[in-house]
Amino acid sequence: MNKTANSMTQALSELKCLLGDRLSTNLTVRDHHSRDESWHEGRPPDAVCFVSGINEVSRTMEICSRHKIPVIPFGAGTGLEGGTVAHKGGICINVSNMNSIIQVNLEDMDCVVQPGVTRKQLNCYLHDSGLFFPIDPGADASLGGMAATRASGTNAVRYGTMRENVLSLKVVMANGSIVTTGRRARKSAAGYDLTHLFIGSEGTLGIIVELSLRLHGRPEAISSARVYFDDIDGAVNTAIQTIQYGIPIARVELLDAAQMRAINQYSKTRYAEKIALFLEFHGSHASVKEQAKTVGEICADLGGSEFEWTTYEEQRREMWDARHSAAYAAMAVKPSAKVYVTDVCVPLSRLSDCIRETREDIEISTNVPTFLLGHIGDGHFHYVFLVDPDDPSEFERILQLSERMVQRAIRMGGTCTGEHGIGLGKQKYLQLEFGETGVELMRTLKLAMDPHNLMNPGKLVDGG
Amino acid sequence: MNKTANSMTQALSELKCLLGDRLSTNLTVRDHHSRDESWHEGRPPDAVCFVSGINEVSRTMEICSRHKIPVIPFGAGTGLEGGTVAHKGGICINVSNMNSIIQVNLEDMDCVVQPGVTRKQLNCYLHDSGLFFPIDPGADASLGGMAATRASGTNAVRYGTMRENVLSLKVVMANGSIVTTGRRARKSAAGYDLTHLFIGSEGTLGIIVELSLRLHGRPEAISSARVYFDDIDGAVNTAIQTIQYGIPIARVELLDAAQMRAINQYSKTRYAEKIALFLEFHGSHASVKEQAKTVGEICADLGGSEFEWTTYEEQRREMWDARHSAAYAAMAVKPSAKVYVTDVCVPLSRLSDCIRETREDIEISTNVPTFLLGHIGDGHFHYVFLVDPDDPSEFERILQLSERMVQRAIRMGGTCTGEHGIGLGKQKYLQLEFGETGVELMRTLKLAMDPHNLMNPGKLVDGG
Repeated sequence: MNKTANSMTQALSELKCLLGDRLSTNLTVRDHHSRDESWHEGRPPDAVCFVSGINEVSRTMEICSRHKIPVIPFGAGTGLEGGTVAHKGGICINVSNMNSIIQVNLEDMDCVVQPGVTRKQLNCYLHDSGLFFPIDPGADASLGGMAATRASGTNAVRYGTMRENVLSLKVVMANGSIVTTGRRARKSAAGYDLTHLFIGSEGTLGIIVELSLRLHGRPEAISSARVYFDDIDGAVNTAIQTIQYGIPIARVELLDAAQMRAINQYSKTRYAEKIALFLEFHGSHASVKEQAKTVGEICADLGGSEFEWTTYEEQRREMWDARHSAAYAAMAVKPSAKVYVTDVCVPLSRLSDCIRETREDIEISTNVPTFLLGHIGDGHFHYVFLVDPDDPSEFERILQLSERMVQRAIRMGGTCTGEHGIGLGKQKYLQLEFGETGVELMRTLKLAMDPHNLMNPGKLVDGG
Repeated sequence: MNKTANSMTQALSELKCLLGDRLSTNLTVRDHHSRDESWHEGRPPDAVCFVSGINEVSRTMEICSRHKIPVIPFGAGTGLEGGTVAHKGGICINVSNMNSIIQVNLEDMDCVVQPGVTRKQLNCYLHDSGLFFPIDPGADASLGGMAATRASGTNAVRYGTMRENVLSLKVVMANGSIVTTGRRARKSAAGYDLTHLFIGSEGTLGIIVELSLRLHGRPEAISSARVYFDDIDGAVNTAIQTIQYGIPIARVELLDAAQMRAINQYSKTRYAEKIALFLEFHGSHASVKEQAKTVGEICADLGGSEFEWTTYEEQRREMWDARHSAAYAAMAVKPSAKVYVTDVCVPLSRLSDCIRETREDIEISTNVPTFLLGHIGDGHFHYVFLVDPDDPSEFERILQLSERMVQRAIRMGGTCTGEHGIGLGKQKYLQLEFGETGVELMRTLKLAMDPHNLMNPGKLVDGG
C-alpha cells in the first residue's frame, strides 16, 4: 500500500471514530457528491462526511490536515463552475445537516445561521417577521455556498450581493482552527477585512461554518410587471437609463424570446414570447408609484409595450418562480443536451455593446439553441447553450465562443463572472482579469492560509 | 557605521537619484510627517519622498525593500490613531502630489482618481456632473488614506463606507510590484476579494496608488433639519426607530449640548445648545416629504422638538460644515489641552445602552470636558476628551475609560472602532474582538504579503 492510500485509510478510520455512520464511502453517496449542476465532468470524493456542528468540522479538518487529505466543502450542490467536483480526490464535507437558524435579531435586522440553511428556508422562517433576505440565485442554494461563491441574483441591483450582505463569518481553517471574521456592528474599521476574504473564496481558504447576515425590511409596497420589446437594445437601454436616473428599482431582468418560450413550457405560464423585462419596485406606496411611472416613460420612449402588471400576489410569485427556474426551463427544451451555462458582467455603459457583439458572434458561430437572461441593472448577463452530447466539436466551438465572450467583457472593463465563480471553468481567465501580479497575490494568500493545498485544491487558483 | 545606518545611507542615495529634490531630509519636513491629528506621540521618518506617479512609488518601494527600510505612506495626515507616525523610523512616502482625477465615467457613475485627491476636491470637480462621492470623514482627508482606514462619515447610513464605495484599487506591494485588485463592473465573483483586503489595511499590506470609486446621483431633492431633545435617550431612539422603519435617511447625527456649544463658538452659528439630531433626507420631492413626515412623527413621540428646517442651500452648507468641524470645535474649547478622541460602533439594539453606560462611566470617572457626537444611524459614536497636558494621571484615567468603552462595545457585539482604525492606539483590542485565531490569521496575511515587515510596521497587527 503506497503512502497516500495508507494516509487515506488512517484518516478514514479516525473519521469513522468521530462520525460513525455519518461517514459514508457508499458509491451512490460519493457519486451524488461528485459534481454540481454544471457541465464539468464529475469525480467522486473518497468519502463523504455529514457533519453536524462546528467542532466536528474542525476535528474533521484537523484529521484531514494531519494526513494531508484534500477536503471539498459541499452545501446544496447547485454550483455552476465545478466547485464541488472532487478534482483531486479527498474527503467531501457535506454541511447540509447544519441547517439551523440560530438567531434572528429583529431590532438589528440581522440573523445568524448555519451554512446548510438554504435561502428559501431562511425566507420562509422570516415570513412573519417583516424582514427578508434578498439574495436569490436561481437555485435554492445553501447560504454557506452562496457566501463561498459570492452569489447574487435578481435583487442585487437594489440590495447588493453576498458581498454586501454578510456581516461576519465563522470559518474552519486548514489546520482545524476556528476564526470569527467580524462582529454584528453595521460597520467597523478594525483590522483586515477577513469577512470579504472568505466571501467568494470557494472553499479554497477555509470552510464556512456560520454566517451573520444582514436582513432587510419588507417594503410597504411591492409592484411587479412585465414589459415587452421588439428589439433587445430597447430592453437593455431601458434598464441602463433606469439605473442612471437613480431609480431604486428592486429587480430588472432581461429574457430573450427563446427564454420566454422555454419558461412558458416549463412553468405553464402564458407570457408573450418576446424579448421581455421583468420589473419589480419596492418602497412606500407613493415611491413605488413614482418609480413605476418614470420607468414606464423610459420604456415607452425606447419602444417598450405597456406594462403587464401582476396584480395579485400569486401572479407575482408565479412570475418570479418562473424567472428563478429559467435556467432549468432552458435545459428542459432539450433534455438530452449537454448544457453549457456562463455569465459575464460589464460596466453599464458597455452592456449594450457587449450583448450585441455576443449575439452577433453566436449568430455566426453556432446553430445550437441559446437562451439569454440577465440581471441587467448590474450590467450582468447569462447565456445557456444546449449542445448535442454526441458532437464534441460543437461543444468545443461553444467553449471558444464563451472564451470570446469573457475576453470581450474583460476588454470592456468587466469581469469573467458576475456570480457563478471561477471553480474549474474560469481559472484561465484570472490572469487576463487580474494580471500576473494579481494572480500571484491570490496564490500567495492561498499558500499562506493553506500551505499543503488541501482546501478544495485545484479550484479558483492553483495552489499546487 | 552599523549595518542599518549603512543601508539607510545607500537607500537615500538611490532615492536621491530617483527623486532629486523630491526626496527631503529637512527636519521641518520630517517633523511635519511625524504624526497625524491624534494624541499619539510623533516620531519623524528619516526622509520624506514626494512621489509623483505609480512607477515612482513602485521604484521607491523596490529600493526600500532591497535595503530593508520601513515605509510609511502619507496622504493628508488627518488620521486619528497614529497611522502615519514613523514608529520604527524609515521612509515616508507622501502621495499628496498624486492628486489628479484621471477619469469620470458619468454613464457608469464611477471615477478613477490618484490617492492624493481629497474628498472635497473630488466633489468640487463633480459639482456640475449630477454625481457626488458621499464618504465624508470630518477632515478633508485624501481618498487613498480614506480607503486605507476604511473611512466613513455622516452619509454612511445611506450610502455605506469606503468598504462599499471602492470598486477597485491599484496597489504597490512590498516588493515593488503593482497589483490591480478588480474591475469597474458593479459586481464580480472572480477570485479572492483583493479590493477589500487593502481597504482598512492602513498601509501595512501595500500602498494604494489609484482608486476606482463608485459615485452616486445627486438626489432630486435634499432637505435638512435640526431637532432638539431634553434627554439623550429620545434622540438615540429616534435614530434607531428611523432605521428600523426602513426610512432611507441620508444623515442622522447626534450631538450633545457641550458639542453644540463648542460648534456655536467655533463656527459662529446660533443653534440651540441642547442635545441635537442633525438630519438630512435625499430622494425625489415626494419621497423626501414622506421621509421627513415619518421621522417627524417619531421625533414627536420621543420628546423631540419641532424640526428646525434649513430652508436655504447656504444654511444647509453651514450646518454640515459645522458638523464636519465638530471635532476641531471641541478641541478649540481648550486649545492648551491634550486631546483624546475615540470611537466605537455597536449593533443598533445596543446603542442606547452603550451610550448610557458610557455616560455614567464618564460621570463617575472624570471632570474633564467631554463631547459626544455620533453617526448613530449606524450604531456609531465618538467621544472627545480634553485633558490637562500637565496631568498625566488624568490622561491615564481617560485611557482606562476609553478601554472600558471598547470592552463594553465588544461585549455588546460591537467593534473597537467604527471608522478611526487600529493604528497604534487600538492594537491591544484586536484580540478581544477577533480572538487569538483571528489575530493570528491577520498576522499570517501580513507576513505572507510583507515578509520583512517593512510596510508601515508596528501598526494594526504586529508583523515583527
